Amino acid sequence: MDKAQQDALKKAAGIEAAKLVTNGMIAGLGTGSTVRFLVDELGRRVQEEGLQFTGVTTSRRTQEQAEGYGIKIVDVDDVDHIDVTIDGADEVDKNFDGIKGGGAALLWEKIVATNSNKIVWIVDESKVVDTIGAFPLPVEVIPFGAGHVIKKFEAKGYKPVLRLDADGKEVRTDENNFVVDLHLGRIDHPRELAEDLINTVGVVEHGLFLNMVDTVIVGDPNGPRVMTNGNK
Amino acid sequence: MDKAQQDALKKAAGIEAAKLVTNGMIAGLGTGSTVRFLVDELGRRVQEEGLQFTGVTTSRRTQEQAEGYGIKIVDVDDVDHIDVTIDGADEVDKNFDGIKGGGAALLWEKIVATNSNKIVWIVDESKVVDTIGAFPLPVEVIPFGAGHVIKKFEAKGYKPVLRLDADGKEVRTDENNFVVDLHLGRIDHPRELAEDLINTVGVVEHGLFLNMVDTVIVGDPNGPRVMTNGNK
Repeated sequence: MDKAQQDALKKAAGIEAAKLVTNGMIAGLGTGSTVRFLVDELGRRVQEEGLQFTGVTTSRRTQEQAEGYGIKIVDVDDVDHIDVTIDGADEVDKNFDGIKGGGAALLWEKIVATNSNKIVWIVDESKVVDTIGAFPLPVEVIPFGAGHVIKKFEAKGYKPVLRLDADGKEVRTDENNFVVDLHLGRIDHPRELAEDLINTVGVVEHGLFLNMVDTVIVGDPNGPRVMTNGNK
Repeated sequence: MDKAQQDALKKAAGIEAAKLVTNGMIAGLGTGSTVRFLVDELGRRVQEEGLQFTGVTTSRRTQEQAEGYGIKIVDVDDVDHIDVTIDGADEVDKNFDGIKGGGAALLWEKIVATNSNKIVWIVDESKVVDTIGAFPLPVEVIPFGAGHVIKKFEAKGYKPVLRLDADGKEVRTDENNFVVDLHLGRIDHPRELAEDLINTVGVVEHGLFLNMVDTVIVGDPNGPRVMTNGNK
């Protein structure tokens, strides 16, 4: 599949997911290439159909895009709850365990998700996998002492790589932390891994989102396909 | 006991602990009023006795004090390991479970401690307790979504208070995060509490240091008293 075809599927999934946002809602808006199509569609409905809703964003990028359409964006601490959060994902398996954070926004994404009544992911078919882990697992790490955290990950066989930008400088998250990507290949025991990572001093958060999502909308050449999580 | 007497005991404990630092060592230097006396004594030995060692500090305050004495300070990531870290504590019980973070430096303190071969705390008698928890437990929290974290803590009966400075503004840690103090009164199950806190999305780290310390040097009117942890 070429990029134009993949974008068409992402766009179809984004438009389908936008239907979940109705008048008066508080909606969490994620980050990433598929979410861009979602926000474009929500912006169109705001402008053409008079849709009124309040958004909470998980990155400065999404905030700027949404505000460009006149969508009202508030801080997560200015709302009691979020009705639905729509976000992308880097991988998701049939147990509804997923990896997020390719875009380095995993911490805000997880904070918004944790405060949402319903979580929806929009992905193209390539993101639906049998076992997660081919996508490198992002871990947000405090810069102070990060070298020691990386050495511990190496000793455990986690194959950590400090994420660098095009100029060879450390990528910084919105909180000014580092991102370490774990090249695990496959993750057979995601809960044990999550437990180990979160208990590592210096780790702020990791990109494992385990059984958090309610609905996955998958872009498919035959039209968007919906996976519903019955075990949450 | 008045403040002058308490300071005398802190100073005696700091001088006793300074003996643990010998030529060629890499020493972690903590933060707080008792550690100030330790660094004063180490500075005296550097200047008067030619002591040579390398320091790793847990706060900018301690770094400035140490460098003022000509003590060589390096970043925690510039050393393979730390031979001994000497730090204060806000409370410690007979199981060597303690609370740290009154000075808002708990994250760097825990990172340095985690990379130390030996951990020593210097305290005055008032810090040694039967059950920890009278001292409010500091928790470092990401500002984004902090209001929701505080509400969750309230719902669990943790009695959280966002730490403010004298001007009524949120105290910021060295990583620019908030500090939420939990007024628990007593902590009967510190391991369960630690597990719950670290798994709360938005929490970076907490001030429970459970069975991490090897030696506690207690300032005592009869001379410094040493508690040795046999179960680490």
